[in-house]
Amino acid sequence: MSLNSFSLFISIISLCCFTSLISSLQSQINVWPKPRTISWTHPQATLLSPTFIILSPYHQHLSPAVNRYLRLILSERHRPIITPTVNLTSTPPLQFLTLSITDLTAPLHHGVDESYTLTIPTVGSANLTAGTVWGAMRGLETFSQLIWGDQLRVASGLYVLDSPIFGHRGVLLDTSRNYYGVEDILRTIEAMSSNKLNVFHWHITDSHSFPLVLPSEPELAQKGSYGPEMQYSPADVRRIVEFGFEHGVRVLPEIDAPGHTGSWAKAHPEIVACANMFWWPTGTEWADRFASEPGTGHLNPLIPKTYQVLRNVIGDVATLFPEPFYHSGADEINPGCWKADPTIQTFLSNGGTLTQLLEMFVNSTFPYIVSLNRTAVYWEDVILDSTVKVDPAILPPENTILQTWNNGPNNTKRIVSAGYRAIVSSSDFYYLDCGHGGFVGNESRVDRQTGDDPGNPFNYNGGNGGSWCGPFKTWQRVYDYDITYGLTEEEAKLVLGGEVALWSEQADATVLDARIWPRASAMAETLWSGNRDETGKKRYAEATDRLNEWRYRMVGRGIGAEPIQPLWCATNPGMCNLVQPL
Amino acid sequence: MSLNSFSLFISIISLCCFTSLISSLQSQINVWPKPRTISWTHPQATLLSPTFIILSPYHQHLSPAVNRYLRLILSERHRPIITPTVNLTSTPPLQFLTLSITDLTAPLHHGVDESYTLTIPTVGSANLTAGTVWGAMRGLETFSQLIWGDQLRVASGLYVLDSPIFGHRGVLLDTSRNYYGVEDILRTIEAMSSNKLNVFHWHITDSHSFPLVLPSEPELAQKGSYGPEMQYSPADVRRIVEFGFEHGVRVLPEIDAPGHTGSWAKAHPEIVACANMFWWPTGTEWADRFASEPGTGHLNPLIPKTYQVLRNVIGDVATLFPEPFYHSGADEINPGCWKADPTIQTFLSNGGTLTQLLEMFVNSTFPYIVSLNRTAVYWEDVILDSTVKVDPAILPPENTILQTWNNGPNNTKRIVSAGYRAIVSSSDFYYLDCGHGGFVGNESRVDRQTGDDPGNPFNYNGGNGGSWCGPFKTWQRVYDYDITYGLTEEEAKLVLGGEVALWSEQADATVLDARIWPRASAMAETLWSGNRDETGKKRYAEATDRLNEWRYRMVGRGIGAEPIQPLWCATNPGMCNLVQPL
Repeated sequence: MSLNSFSLFISIISLCCFTSLISSLQSQINVWPKPRTISWTHPQATLLSPTFIILSPYHQHLSPAVNRYLRLILSERHRPIITPTVNLTSTPPLQFLTLSITDLTAPLHHGVDESYTLTIPTVGSANLTAGTVWGAMRGLETFSQLIWGDQLRVASGLYVLDSPIFGHRGVLLDTSRNYYGVEDILRTIEAMSSNKLNVFHWHITDSHSFPLVLPSEPELAQKGSYGPEMQYSPADVRRIVEFGFEHGVRVLPEIDAPGHTGSWAKAHPEIVACANMFWWPTGTEWADRFASEPGTGHLNPLIPKTYQVLRNVIGDVATLFPEPFYHSGADEINPGCWKADPTIQTFLSNGGTLTQLLEMFVNSTFPYIVSLNRTAVYWEDVILDSTVKVDPAILPPENTILQTWNNGPNNTKRIVSAGYRAIVSSSDFYYLDCGHGGFVGNESRVDRQTGDDPGNPFNYNGGNGGSWCGPFKTWQRVYDYDITYGLTEEEAKLVLGGEVALWSEQADATVLDARIWPRASAMAETLWSGNRDETGKKRYAEATDRLNEWRYRMVGRGIGAEPIQPLWCATNPGMCNLVQPL
Repeated sequence: MSLNSFSLFISIISLCCFTSLISSLQSQINVWPKPRTISWTHPQATLLSPTFIILSPYHQHLSPAVNRYLRLILSERHRPIITPTVNLTSTPPLQFLTLSITDLTAPLHHGVDESYTLTIPTVGSANLTAGTVWGAMRGLETFSQLIWGDQLRVASGLYVLDSPIFGHRGVLLDTSRNYYGVEDILRTIEAMSSNKLNVFHWHITDSHSFPLVLPSEPELAQKGSYGPEMQYSPADVRRIVEFGFEHGVRVLPEIDAPGHTGSWAKAHPEIVACANMFWWPTGTEWADRFASEPGTGHLNPLIPKTYQVLRNVIGDVATLFPEPFYHSGADEINPGCWKADPTIQTFLSNGGTLTQLLEMFVNSTFPYIVSLNRTAVYWEDVILDSTVKVDPAILPPENTILQTWNNGPNNTKRIVSAGYRAIVSSSDFYYLDCGHGGFVGNESRVDRQTGDDPGNPFNYNGGNGGSWCGPFKTWQRVYDYDITYGLTEEEAKLVLGGEVALWSEQADATVLDARIWPRASAMAETLWSGNRDETGKKRYAEATDRLNEWRYRMVGRGIGAEPIQPLWCATNPGMCNLVQPL
């Protein structure tokens, strides 16, 4: 999180505009995530002309976005939960929004300038100015949220100066444990764009299925997917990547390896240790199970063919995905799995170690990833796992980013203090699947008619009910998390941003929207403009009413976001709070 | 749960058919809930003729069901997750299913005979025999689930003898905290029928909104609903009730009173104490708050107009709903609410008690309910609340049923040992909304970056995350619950059955299907045919694979049931269990 002179300017502006922000709130015309600064001294509105148009320079990705927003603006006709109290000006209807962009060539990479300014005067054309087309897309979204009503009205006499705190604001979706259709992914990317989120972290493959069709390794999907109708073809990927560009959303692929690769064994049984075996063999200790959960298989680092296949996979993925980050996984090495393989048993009995195996794997893949001009992203386990981890010396920080998921702020600190850049998806805050109970069958510990033993992990009286990362993370839990908590100013600069994650043991298209939204919206605001008000106080109280309003607007846009409260709470602001308003 | 001679006969049959049940399992042709007895010694299938028809006597409610099942059967073309291994006979395609019903006049009341027998020979017509049209509907559902494939096949050489253990098998839906459209309710009733559930407990009104339009009290909905588009008109109710009859589902209305009535105050402010006030006034103790959660208001038993309005409401509801049970609520009297009202303060200062107030209320409404030929259902609080409850003598067991929600089997025992019939919806097992965190806003206890204090109710490290009834109840949790646990045989006879409940603080149409299904399916099987196999062992392990299969079939029928596991688990039966198959 680096403050440049531009955002410093924003901070000064925001202090001066405290009063106008209050007015904005009272009018119920809200933008989510809340912009860094809105100046709207006299809340008023202007009619939007039925022949309203957006004037914009041509750009391959921006122009489709402009057309999309024009359609949305003219058709949405959003009705706020509470009728806004702003005055309608008697000036002519707004006819034009004019876009001015400094640099039409800046690519959609991490850290690209996403700032914009938006001016909607009471008379004359509205203006949106941005350094890049990606900033312009953020401004278009803001503009769209300032419009409401059956007879379209737009907030006017208004000035927005906006930019994100964090450059990496993502959603992880696991499409291996259960499959999602291309349309589901596109809808998710569209919703992300509405929330100014910019990274779709696609956890494509895992032990359960390999849905990605790769030209050099077609058998991986042909045999390892759930079926021909549950695959992503190269054309599907191109469509998703292109859709991402048109929404300012990077599509970051993850091919998890060497663990989480059971599905690879359908095509290449010889390169996968312990593939598709019972996950926790009778009589073994919990620590010696073959996988963290059902669905076993780790690539075998001793087999030369492992690397032939991996080069094909990595090469194809780098061709399909222009994104400069490549996520290589490397989480949850289970010693039991590797130890179950005869070739590895021989290696170990000759004095080899599991650490050497993982280092062999990394040394045989990481340089190739870097050679393709990619920054490698790994899960934190690769250097922080308690049992099997590599020497950090083989992963230079200039080419490596680590994603944290365990132990909250503590592991973020360990990553950045080792000099690595960090992406934060702490399971205690950002895992959207948690708190849904266990999914493992034949679970005798669930069968209790009365109070449970304290300490039973399946305790249903005050326990987690079998969810390792329970309880459920409410939107307030997500909203309140400070991803640079406990870091020095220098360390905090290494935190690129955060990602909420939907792992799909108990999710597929039927529940996708409601599991992600509006909780991802909560993270989106915290990472865009923060979770504190101008006085430095956490703003979760007033955010409740704004998020209610935004949730209903998302539903109107076709995103099945779950309700966070009874509608009564939204129509009676503050009345569902824990503490009485003063 | 009374065993009559018929079900005793079934028990004997089921012992003899253990082998054939195993075959049924291996073939992956499953019926959910599992019938009491399937005899299918040599699993085989016959083609279903494209001109297949169902022959049935005419009946106002059965005939639409027959037409519906015929359409479903000919269009569903279900593909089981694992291709069935049964042999296709070379006999002619099945042309007819013939229905024989003993009594075409038996009304859809609690305890009506729902038994049926279904015979599908390898040659000739299939036969469905039932005592009533309601039993015939159960048999039609079973028949529909025995058909699969693009080219329709039906299991043959098969005999089913089936009937429910419990007569009351319900789903409660709260349409006050958030509104659900009529189509959402119809879809839920249709899904209930597919699961052989037979009571839609409609918690229509509460403090948050009063969506029911009543001819004698139109202002209650006009002013107390969320808006004109969020009401249920008399025509809507008639449609829902009729739809219920055509699906063998009773529609049991609940008008919760005297608590949970804040919404009544919009039309009649003078009859509601503490209406629409802040729920937990600053400086008061937790026990003295005005409501259990935001949304305040209790009817005032001292005001004569209270009873005028109530007679209109009860009378209209009894006219709209032919169902012989009338649910009158009476849960969660908060002393703080009544004590906040000036007229009640005077009553109390003159020596009156809160108990007298509630008894006054019951004595002024219960006889009227009974006079309309209704059995009154109350929440258990009416006699079990720790503070405000009535003398059981004023609620004779012959006209009163109590619904339990607290304290698991202990409260069921208290209810039946007092001689009342019980409906079980223990929150520890059957509340489908639990484990979703708190919904109250401005919740400062959520804002923790690290480990929580033990004992903090909002503990996010192993706690409930703000959900009073957390954690989330998994389908296994629901399935394993024995609703007569700890009762004597005589006491058990007073347990009419159970209901899963969806309270709507954090639910509306966007999440309806996934919150209810397939967890309500789990209860449906336990209440229909039990949760134990022929040896008396709980059958949750084999139920996992069957429920997976049933969940996918429900999704194909348009019910957005949530997945319970990765698809990999369903295609690899037993591999996602906790314990390795032998």
